[in-house]
Amino acid sequence: MRVGIIGASGYTGGELLRLLLRHPKVELTIATSRKHEGEYLYRVHPNLRGLTDMKFQKHDVEAVVERSDLVFTALPHGTSMNFMPRLVEGGVKVIDLSADFRLRDPKAYEIWYGFKHPCPELLERFVYGLPELHRDEIKGASYVATPGCTAMATILALAPLVKAGIVELDRLVADVKIGSSGAGASPSIFTHFSERFGVVRPYKPVMHRHTGEVEQELSGLVGEDVRVAMTPHGVNMVRGILSTCHSFLSKEVGIPDLWRAYRRMYGKEPFVRLIRDLKGLYRYPDPKMVIGSNFADVGFELDGWAKRVVSFCAIDNLMKGAAGTAVQCMNLMLGYDETMGLETPPLHPV
Amino acid sequence: MRVGIIGASGYTGGELLRLLLRHPKVELTIATSRKHEGEYLYRVHPNLRGLTDMKFQKHDVEAVVERSDLVFTALPHGTSMNFMPRLVEGGVKVIDLSADFRLRDPKAYEIWYGFKHPCPELLERFVYGLPELHRDEIKGASYVATPGCTAMATILALAPLVKAGIVELDRLVADVKIGSSGAGASPSIFTHFSERFGVVRPYKPVMHRHTGEVEQELSGLVGEDVRVAMTPHGVNMVRGILSTCHSFLSKEVGIPDLWRAYRRMYGKEPFVRLIRDLKGLYRYPDPKMVIGSNFADVGFELDGWAKRVVSFCAIDNLMKGAAGTAVQCMNLMLGYDETMGLETPPLHPV
Amino acid sequence: MRVGIIGASGYTGGELLRLLLRHPKVELTIATSRKHEGEYLYRVHPNLRGLTDMKFQKHDVEAVVERSDLVFTALPHGTSMNFMPRLVEGGVKVIDLSADFRLRDPKAYEIWYGFKHPCPELLERFVYGLPELHRDEIKGASYVATPGCTAMATILALAPLVKAGIVELDRLVADVKIGSSGAGASPSIFTHFSERFGVVRPYKPVMHRHTGEVEQELSGLVGEDVRVAMTPHGVNMVRGILSTCHSFLSKEVGIPDLWRAYRRMYGKEPFVRLIRDLKGLYRYPDPKMVIGSNFADVGFELDGWAKRVVSFCAIDNLMKGAAGTAVQCMNLMLGYDETMGLETPPLHPV
Amino acid sequence: MRVGIIGASGYTGGELLRLLLRHPKVELTIATSRKHEGEYLYRVHPNLRGLTDMKFQKHDVEAVVERSDLVFTALPHGTSMNFMPRLVEGGVKVIDLSADFRLRDPKAYEIWYGFKHPCPELLERFVYGLPELHRDEIKGASYVATPGCTAMATILALAPLVKAGIVELDRLVADVKIGSSGAGASPSIFTHFSERFGVVRPYKPVMHRHTGEVEQELSGLVGEDVRVAMTPHGVNMVRGILSTCHSFLSKEVGIPDLWRAYRRMYGKEPFVRLIRDLKGLYRYPDPKMVIGSNFADVGFELDGWAKRVVSFCAIDNLMKGAAGTAVQCMNLMLGYDETMGLETPPLHPV
Repeated sequence: MRVGIIGASGYTGGELLRLLLRHPKVELTIATSRKHEGEYLYRVHPNLRGLTDMKFQKHDVEAVVERSDLVFTALPHGTSMNFMPRLVEGGVKVIDLSADFRLRDPKAYEIWYGFKHPCPELLERFVYGLPELHRDEIKGASYVATPGCTAMATILALAPLVKAGIVELDRLVADVKIGSSGAGASPSIFTHFSERFGVVRPYKPVMHRHTGEVEQELSGLVGEDVRVAMTPHGVNMVRGILSTCHSFLSKEVGIPDLWRAYRRMYGKEPFVRLIRDLKGLYRYPDPKMVIGSNFADVGFELDGWAKRVVSFCAIDNLMKGAAGTAVQCMNLMLGYDETMGLETPPLHPV
Repeated sequence: MRVGIIGASGYTGGELLRLLLRHPKVELTIATSRKHEGEYLYRVHPNLRGLTDMKFQKHDVEAVVERSDLVFTALPHGTSMNFMPRLVEGGVKVIDLSADFRLRDPKAYEIWYGFKHPCPELLERFVYGLPELHRDEIKGASYVATPGCTAMATILALAPLVKAGIVELDRLVADVKIGSSGAGASPSIFTHFSERFGVVRPYKPVMHRHTGEVEQELSGLVGEDVRVAMTPHGVNMVRGILSTCHSFLSKEVGIPDLWRAYRRMYGKEPFVRLIRDLKGLYRYPDPKMVIGSNFADVGFELDGWAKRVVSFCAIDNLMKGAAGTAVQCMNLMLGYDETMGLETPPLHPV
Repeated sequence: MRVGIIGASGYTGGELLRLLLRHPKVELTIATSRKHEGEYLYRVHPNLRGLTDMKFQKHDVEAVVERSDLVFTALPHGTSMNFMPRLVEGGVKVIDLSADFRLRDPKAYEIWYGFKHPCPELLERFVYGLPELHRDEIKGASYVATPGCTAMATILALAPLVKAGIVELDRLVADVKIGSSGAGASPSIFTHFSERFGVVRPYKPVMHRHTGEVEQELSGLVGEDVRVAMTPHGVNMVRGILSTCHSFLSKEVGIPDLWRAYRRMYGKEPFVRLIRDLKGLYRYPDPKMVIGSNFADVGFELDGWAKRVVSFCAIDNLMKGAAGTAVQCMNLMLGYDETMGLETPPLHPV
Repeated sequence: MRVGIIGASGYTGGELLRLLLRHPKVELTIATSRKHEGEYLYRVHPNLRGLTDMKFQKHDVEAVVERSDLVFTALPHGTSMNFMPRLVEGGVKVIDLSADFRLRDPKAYEIWYGFKHPCPELLERFVYGLPELHRDEIKGASYVATPGCTAMATILALAPLVKAGIVELDRLVADVKIGSSGAGASPSIFTHFSERFGVVRPYKPVMHRHTGEVEQELSGLVGEDVRVAMTPHGVNMVRGILSTCHSFLSKEVGIPDLWRAYRRMYGKEPFVRLIRDLKGLYRYPDPKMVIGSNFADVGFELDGWAKRVVSFCAIDNLMKGAAGTAVQCMNLMLGYDETMGLETPPLHPV
């Protein structure tokens, strides 16, 4: 399968390269970068030194269409929408890692991103690339938009509770902690080491853009409006997200009910581990446990005092939260084993 | 003023030493440690090397009473209650940094700490040592119990909203991020560097002990039951706490209303900085901004979409969260300038 | 191939498990632990959750011999020597990751480890398991002792200079920076997070035990005594070592001479990357670039002013510095492709 | 005393502000910044929020001369030399924190900085602002150039050995580990958090600019040429430097000789602590122990095997390594108590 990447110099592009260069079914034919055209991949992604002598090609959509059967687009939001019609017309399959085709409702782009979508007719052709919720649709899709990492962690933590009908749907809280790599590879004063080290920095504490896709997906599970109060914080690490979700109970439940809800949804998922351990050091999900892997660790606890469930989802934001899920979707779209190229266990300790 | 410290070898003990050794009105007469009796202070607290040649004395309550007018007790929970009657009888003033005398209701100790309090008659003689809520009582007190650091950050973030009567009192969420020093100076697998580095580790995600004092203090503001769903997480830093509080609105408010609520409560506080900046890098409280100081940075944001207020409080858990507030209480109790010995600005960057 | 691990609960044991569980030629039959007998592997190595349901077996050498064709021993120094005669007698191949069989000269154990070796007759049957220096011997060996991580990084940085005969052999300096995982999985005040975070802590600044094997190997290259002044420092990371070596020139050389020396030695090595880049961010070796991989990044610079070469070697101490090289040796001993099971690229950023 | 700061928006400028705003003898009259003119100091230095409502003034040398008796210049190298003649002519005392007036020999600027000095006649009027070596000259000086932080740590670690005449002067090695704040406040890909976190990154491993001043000062102690092979590394922290110096012995010495050499030089220094402890966790200097203070921790060890002394100096690069020493020099120049405004103890743990 000939595969190309548009926008391969960012962190998600680099992670795609790391996965695709060793994927047994993939022939990586082209990787573009506006900024680094002509440079060796390993100058930008130093981990790839010794693994490939490829160089970044210029950002030429025609060349990509010509050389690829499937294309990953890993660009800043608002970019891929500009040439997506050409990719579709060119007959290639597309997996878009940006936000440009995640939302079904064109009006939602005005609320959450502040612009009018230029090709709203394409939105319904894209599937939301979260295999745990849309596996069958992804299998039949030609166009997939993978979730935002903050959104994914929040959806996976909340979905079983929402689906089970046991929590108040208008008062869901998602308090998210995220590593620096989620902010991308471009330096700024916000990411200057001396300023970023050791922070617990609230970032877009209200109206975070990923709220739109979280509410779309959770509402889709129950056919009712769901409201999520999401507040991310930058913390002192490079990779990893933990979404801690606080849901108030709408009916009385016990821990076995919660286990049932989570097992029903994720019991057969190849990349979801359910973690609520009564022994040992790692009793709940923690991003430290998933670094380098495609696992989503999901867990929960019941709070009888405050009539609440706390639920957690930890992912490596560049893997399960971006490139890993994108490859998982590719495997599904092309009929490969879903876990192909994604089997590397997490590192510990790291 | 002759001052002694019982339990001076832990991190709060060390921070007390750092402050008291340079306090202009204090003569530090004795610092005890069971474990390090006879050792130089600077062997345990290496920052004090060159500043003092004092040694740890043995844990002898009689000696402490004899040599002190005021005593700080900085011991693990469940310890100071055993000899507090003797300190009271000895006629010394006491500032206790443990949880042993924070709760007014003896039954609350059974709920949150799982034991029957051995000297319930003393509980009412202690004042909860949070100057922002109890300044006048502290001024007249002989016995003060300073707040837990997680509790303090949560109370300071929520109190203005609770007092203003604008939020639902049974669905308050406090999602707390805390540095390792809050877990004390004793090594264990939980604090082993290779396991603790880079974590976002949920810790006691429900029924955290500090919930009791948070609810006591917030209920006290309005004469109504308040319920707080608190979930702390260990994050990758040594000093610092951020409490992020999510409160659902019980009436419609605007940002000016919120400013008014916070200004009314903290406008004249010497150690509270209100932070909700529309420019610059540090727009909301962040522990990085308070390290080494006695400041509590408090801020908020209004979420019109989810009908919520997010409020924040950041403190250095060893300073404002423990030893700094204890010295602030001492200053109030003894009629000194409230900020004496606490004026050092935070470090930046650090 | 049936493989067993004696001492599988430490960090190098965990890394062996991570590699061997997915090695295409290996059937992992037994993993022992004195401390965690009967516990699931994933309780101690949380990254393995979902990958295996194996449990730690008791430390029973007979059982290991019976079930294994090849045994890894990953125990604290001074332990495996006690039962090594039994393993040898049992006819299994052995790869020992401790220091017990690294030194050829029994007297060296008295100098560097302070004890008399109990089975000196076995020392000559072991090969020093550094493929870059001893590949052919390892291929034919039944008993291999893999290098210490600090020693390995230092040997790889210095060997080409020593072999080329261009540096003073009695004044070699190795200034090493090492992550916390090198100190193992047992908590102590030295590894307590609050004390270990942010340090640059000199550790055994003279007479470090690994000096013995460094001098043995470098002397072996030239048939002359070599003296290495080695000083390690703990730094603020979990994985990774950088050895910075300062060598004074014994003759005048240019940069092309240095390239020649390094290329001659490592030009065909599958796991050595030579890094001296004039562009980009990563111009010299840095542990950050090798995390999770079996690469040893080696580089150098010429100092015409001080008549010195600075050379560097960066490795992931748990991979190339321990378990990765052990598996590389296993592949060589058993005639497998040398890189089998070791192909995972490093993570970036991490 | 009216004091002004030219270039107050960088990290050393911010640290000067933090110290001078609370110095009992100083009236801070003006703080300039080209980039942040008109902005509140606390927007750039968030730790100062609540402590001052001053704003940055424009970079106007005349205004500074008019309003100040003493001026600190805290600018990038190559800047202050352009207006220094005007400051001298204006009759103000000057403490320059850049490299522009540290070297006595104009030709040295060509070697180490690659430019011809524009006002070489001023070089001899400046004193090298290291009180431990030049206290009496500083007391009588009007113009002082404070040392580079890397240079200072290296000089303090080596000076007693050089002065005692016991080490080879042409083979001194300084292997330096430094936090990110030494690289200043301007973002770049080199300081981008995701790239900078967790590194041990060699930086200018040969011909580092500070070598010039180290050799100038050490040569000055003995009237002989001294050659220093210096290699700095960026490590995973914000504040702090450790210089590890490896010196080969030119004569046989014992540990008492080394103690004598270090005590003779630093025994009465208010800010040097000699650390070579046989007990406890902190046996040698470590930057973690000096954060926030003006201490220089100096220590050593004797290596009988390799005939070497390892010596260490740890400083907080923004305090003792920059602003702290500048204020110490100011105190000396103006006849104040040398430690005034510099008494804050280090933080621990941090």
